[in-house]
Amino acid sequence: MTDLTLSDDELGLFTDLYELTMLQAYWAEGMHGSAVFSLFFRHPPVHRNFMLACGQEHAARLATGLRFPRAQLDRLETIGLFREPFLRWLEAFRFSGEILAMPEGTPVFPHEPILEVHAPVAEAQVLETLLMNLITTETVLASKAARITLAADGRPVMDFGMRRMHGTDAALRGVRAYSVGGIHATSNVLASLRYGLPASGTMAHSFIQAHHDELEAFRTYGQLYPGTTLLVDTYDSMAAVGKVIRLVREEGLQIGAIRLDSGNLAELAHQARAHLDAAGLEHVQIVASGGLDEWAIRDLLTGGAPIDRFGVGTEMGASVDAPSLDLAYKLTEYDGEPRLKNAPGKQLHPGPKQVWRFSDAGGRYSHDEITRRDEHRDGVPLLTPIVQAGTPLGEAPQVTAGRDRAWAAIARFPDAMRELEAPAAPYPVHFSDALERLRRETVAGLGY
Amino acid sequence: MTDLTLSDDELGLFTDLYELTMLQAYWAEGMHGSAVFSLFFRHPPVHRNFMLACGQEHAARLATGLRFPRAQLDRLETIGLFREPFLRWLEAFRFSGEILAMPEGTPVFPHEPILEVHAPVAEAQVLETLLMNLITTETVLASKAARITLAADGRPVMDFGMRRMHGTDAALRGVRAYSVGGIHATSNVLASLRYGLPASGTMAHSFIQAHHDELEAFRTYGQLYPGTTLLVDTYDSMAAVGKVIRLVREEGLQIGAIRLDSGNLAELAHQARAHLDAAGLEHVQIVASGGLDEWAIRDLLTGGAPIDRFGVGTEMGASVDAPSLDLAYKLTEYDGEPRLKNAPGKQLHPGPKQVWRFSDAGGRYSHDEITRRDEHRDGVPLLTPIVQAGTPLGEAPQVTAGRDRAWAAIARFPDAMRELEAPAAPYPVHFSDALERLRRETVAGLGY
Repeated sequence: MTDLTLSDDELGLFTDLYELTMLQAYWAEGMHGSAVFSLFFRHPPVHRNFMLACGQEHAARLATGLRFPRAQLDRLETIGLFREPFLRWLEAFRFSGEILAMPEGTPVFPHEPILEVHAPVAEAQVLETLLMNLITTETVLASKAARITLAADGRPVMDFGMRRMHGTDAALRGVRAYSVGGIHATSNVLASLRYGLPASGTMAHSFIQAHHDELEAFRTYGQLYPGTTLLVDTYDSMAAVGKVIRLVREEGLQIGAIRLDSGNLAELAHQARAHLDAAGLEHVQIVASGGLDEWAIRDLLTGGAPIDRFGVGTEMGASVDAPSLDLAYKLTEYDGEPRLKNAPGKQLHPGPKQVWRFSDAGGRYSHDEITRRDEHRDGVPLLTPIVQAGTPLGEAPQVTAGRDRAWAAIARFPDAMRELEAPAAPYPVHFSDALERLRRETVAGLGY
Repeated sequence: MTDLTLSDDELGLFTDLYELTMLQAYWAEGMHGSAVFSLFFRHPPVHRNFMLACGQEHAARLATGLRFPRAQLDRLETIGLFREPFLRWLEAFRFSGEILAMPEGTPVFPHEPILEVHAPVAEAQVLETLLMNLITTETVLASKAARITLAADGRPVMDFGMRRMHGTDAALRGVRAYSVGGIHATSNVLASLRYGLPASGTMAHSFIQAHHDELEAFRTYGQLYPGTTLLVDTYDSMAAVGKVIRLVREEGLQIGAIRLDSGNLAELAHQARAHLDAAGLEHVQIVASGGLDEWAIRDLLTGGAPIDRFGVGTEMGASVDAPSLDLAYKLTEYDGEPRLKNAPGKQLHPGPKQVWRFSDAGGRYSHDEITRRDEHRDGVPLLTPIVQAGTPLGEAPQVTAGRDRAWAAIARFPDAMRELEAPAAPYPVHFSDALERLRRETVAGLGY
């Protein structure tokens, strides 16, 4: 096995050391009280009017299967911090708690719990690192993809980012997230097969370079792959477009599109479109790629560039403008008592919560309210149980359901939320009076 | 098996679709000529005076084991682009070529090949995506880690980034890269066990919150883990330091350090140091964490903050200021003939190459020269064979060797290279006259 593999058996050790030292401390103290942990972010990443919550259902299902087989505990023992009776306790570990989460693809805002875990404190604590790693990855990538989808304004976007993504897991599960974010196809073969997004691709410059002449390379590809896309910028884009026209008109090849990958894409697209149209090749599309992000795509389209499809790699692959999210997983209740922390800039509202999304008379979303779990509102509650008594409810989440949910929701927000720039005012999210009161009481009870 | 697993069997499908469609085209045309591909980047990411080449030896070893088992080809066939005779050819695929690479941990500059592949064109082509994904990840993360190590100026740095890294593979192999980049320890249990970096960790706020009082939580941890680090900012950092002092002086607990994770770290560190020293606890160290990057660490230390160790998470975990690298894998020779592309801004020097690093009389590095492979210089050649006739040479690379190599080299560069800011002039890297001449001749031969 390569070390690209993270086996089920190893999943328990895929965690921060302090989770396990805290577990041993809870165990040593006999602290088995029930805890509530809440997963949320405090600040929206730059340029993100909303985030698409993604990966939480998958992560929760994995968490319920977390085990610590003896062979792994023997490895853990070598660190020298853990006692045999505790390791035996870990060996018997099973998650027995409840997990509530927003459904995949839900647009989410700062301070709103994406997921809450209710379980004996050790069981809830040990999920922290795994949940955060998985949910951060998919949420960051889905949210970037949504911006690119919005910028492309209905034109298909293909993911070309695999080579620039951070490792194999991000490259695979990122494609799930891209699908939720509205991307139409991926160059990533394995991810396409795993997650059902159509596989897509053109050709590399190397294919052109390896041939004695570009025309011959085009001909081979066009014959093998009717409807294919030919890459025209290896030497001289307009000369290459001339060759494509010749192959279609004189040899009857079926060419679906040309791809521009460098230079002034707007100018080249206009020139190429004019050449193709003049030759009667109105059906041959133009694909643009090469360092594109949502701003570049929007500028191309608002400038009227005749581009039909976009290939987006690096900028989406590493979510370059905002590659991280300040996701936190915080204890908000222990043994029935509200808990908080009071660190500067990192205040926390105590207790289990619900998030309600409200619509106006026209069905457009107007605002969200974060309440105590035991409050009721006439909005739509976003947190629903996905794990009960340690058992996942229902079927594994489908990518298509997340995608449909995301885009149905995105359409219902105020128009400004779908722009690339920040709206004049952020989408309104309030804490309920009861929750604010609970927070004040809990702070007062701390005595600091 | 979870879908966090990428098995050996699936590695061949972990690729961009166009690699496989190009392969089928080469196969269909009977193009089996030998090719040279070169892996390099064109632009240094922002704030990177050098990059640490990392992951290339591991990636090359994986590449030599690339196989396409029948079960995987049956999945591939469902895409509808591949013919059975080609799939049978893939089933028999074995890499038979040569790979040269810089040793892991080598500081590398724009345009310098990190790795070159010499093989029949299809064999060399098919490695592209896998090599780029793996080498990008480790090189980006090692290079960020090196900056943080430089800023910490000899003080140990612990990786706390696992929860914010992009997926499980980045979180694991990233720790390898951090080790090469000079990081001293990691919170990541599984990565610690796999790659030998010491496991390290403190406690989370939740542990404090779950207890009725902070003192009790500190006592439990201190008793269980002599020499541990206690997190003091859950409610009031200075009040917590008072409790630490009480536990050490009155109860004889062994506490190794306190951790500050929020607020004005410089001010809090000064106050905490004064309290601890006044109580005779000069041996209790101060660990700082919470959104730190290399700039914040440098500012803390140049401001005289009495911080002994740093915990760095998000900023290193996603290499937030520069999460990507414009790594390219380009055909430079086919069938003995130099090849290039001529796309605007993406010029390429043809042919196989060598990179020579030169020192001055005092042993400091003075400049690099990129030459044709058949030229000789009296500098140190950086590219050496690591795979021959499809077989890896020597043992798998050791993290410690990469780390030693990196830091021996970093010490030999001009002082300005070790600063966080860009030097007045970048490190000099020249193309040889013969290589420039070959490029001019090859461009002329294109006829554009």
